[in-house]
Amino acid sequence: MTLRVLGVDPGLTRCGIGVVDVERNRRASMVAVGVVGTSPDESLDRRLLVIATAIDEWLDRYEPEVLAVERVFSQLNVSTVMGVAQASGVVIAAAARRGIPVALHTPSEVKAAVTGSGSSNKDAVTKLVTKILRLDAPPRPADAADALALAITHAWRAGSGAAVATTGPGSSSLTPAQRAWAEAEAKARRAR
Amino acid sequence: MTLRVLGVDPGLTRCGIGVVDVERNRRASMVAVGVVGTSPDESLDRRLLVIATAIDEWLDRYEPEVLAVERVFSQLNVSTVMGVAQASGVVIAAAARRGIPVALHTPSEVKAAVTGSGSSNKDAVTKLVTKILRLDAPPRPADAADALALAITHAWRAGSGAAVATTGPGSSSLTPAQRAWAEAEAKARRAR
Repeated sequence: MTLRVLGVDPGLTRCGIGVVDVERNRRASMVAVGVVGTSPDESLDRRLLVIATAIDEWLDRYEPEVLAVERVFSQLNVSTVMGVAQASGVVIAAAARRGIPVALHTPSEVKAAVTGSGSSNKDAVTKLVTKILRLDAPPRPADAADALALAITHAWRAGSGAAVATTGPGSSSLTPAQRAWAEAEAKARRAR
Repeated sequence: MTLRVLGVDPGLTRCGIGVVDVERNRRASMVAVGVVGTSPDESLDRRLLVIATAIDEWLDRYEPEVLAVERVFSQLNVSTVMGVAQASGVVIAAAARRGIPVALHTPSEVKAAVTGSGSSNKDAVTKLVTKILRLDAPPRPADAADALALAITHAWRAGSGAAVATTGPGSSSLTPAQRAWAEAEAKARRAR
């Protein structure tokens, strides 16, 4: 009985995507990982189309129960944050079109969940993701590792019943992943 | 021989949409105008889905030759600008999926084109849009008028051969609207 989460670290130049299956006992396994890249030399509409097409393909292929996306902050530089927000909008809408619930997690939530400290650096996150998923080599680039870390974070926080930042104040008290998990468990019980 | 432009003033709470037909002699006529609104009480994925669905419907129904979107700046407050950027990402991707060229214009470009001054206020823009389109009453809310103003701006700047801010450095020296216009004119010449 596992929860499949597709994590996305959004961006125009590099958009990290990772799929993880997490068991009820927190054991996590990597299903797939990748990076969609577009060049700053391309037009914005072309770049967003490449990302939209890629996300559609990943959602169709891996059929995740939940999509976990990094919550975008504006402490980045101005032009970067606009592109990140535009890419995240496209990614979130793609999941919404399919009725797949979306959850947002901040970078410090991800660091805390994976490394135990909200102020860890990127290298520490990559190292722990490699260990948690029992990989032979660290996922590269860092955006790919971040996408996997997001997926792990979401499943762990949802499974532990901790409060999870969902996509808006309209969400019920259960997070999307908690709901997905509860439904999957109910289904499994009925199937026994 | 007209150019049909769909203008969008992006936003999560109110997304203004306007369609304008502009003739070669700059005469502009309103085809349709509207506002898609979503509540801050709804989840982000739900809000983006409502906007994505609306844009798809407008693109299918009015078949514009170009989509003109307001270029998002970050001088707005942080939480607002993120939503605006996410909504604009969804809108731009929708046009890109259909192969419709996308052009970005700054608010001051729009004010300058419509009112003659880049520092005009919203009321002046609404007043001039009403006059240019020969409407009986000003379009409300302001987001609707802004969407129409964006569409007019794009057609006028494209038609006049002025340099237009396109979506990226990858664009050719012709703007999308200029290309659309040149192609439409060539077609009209062949049809004669």
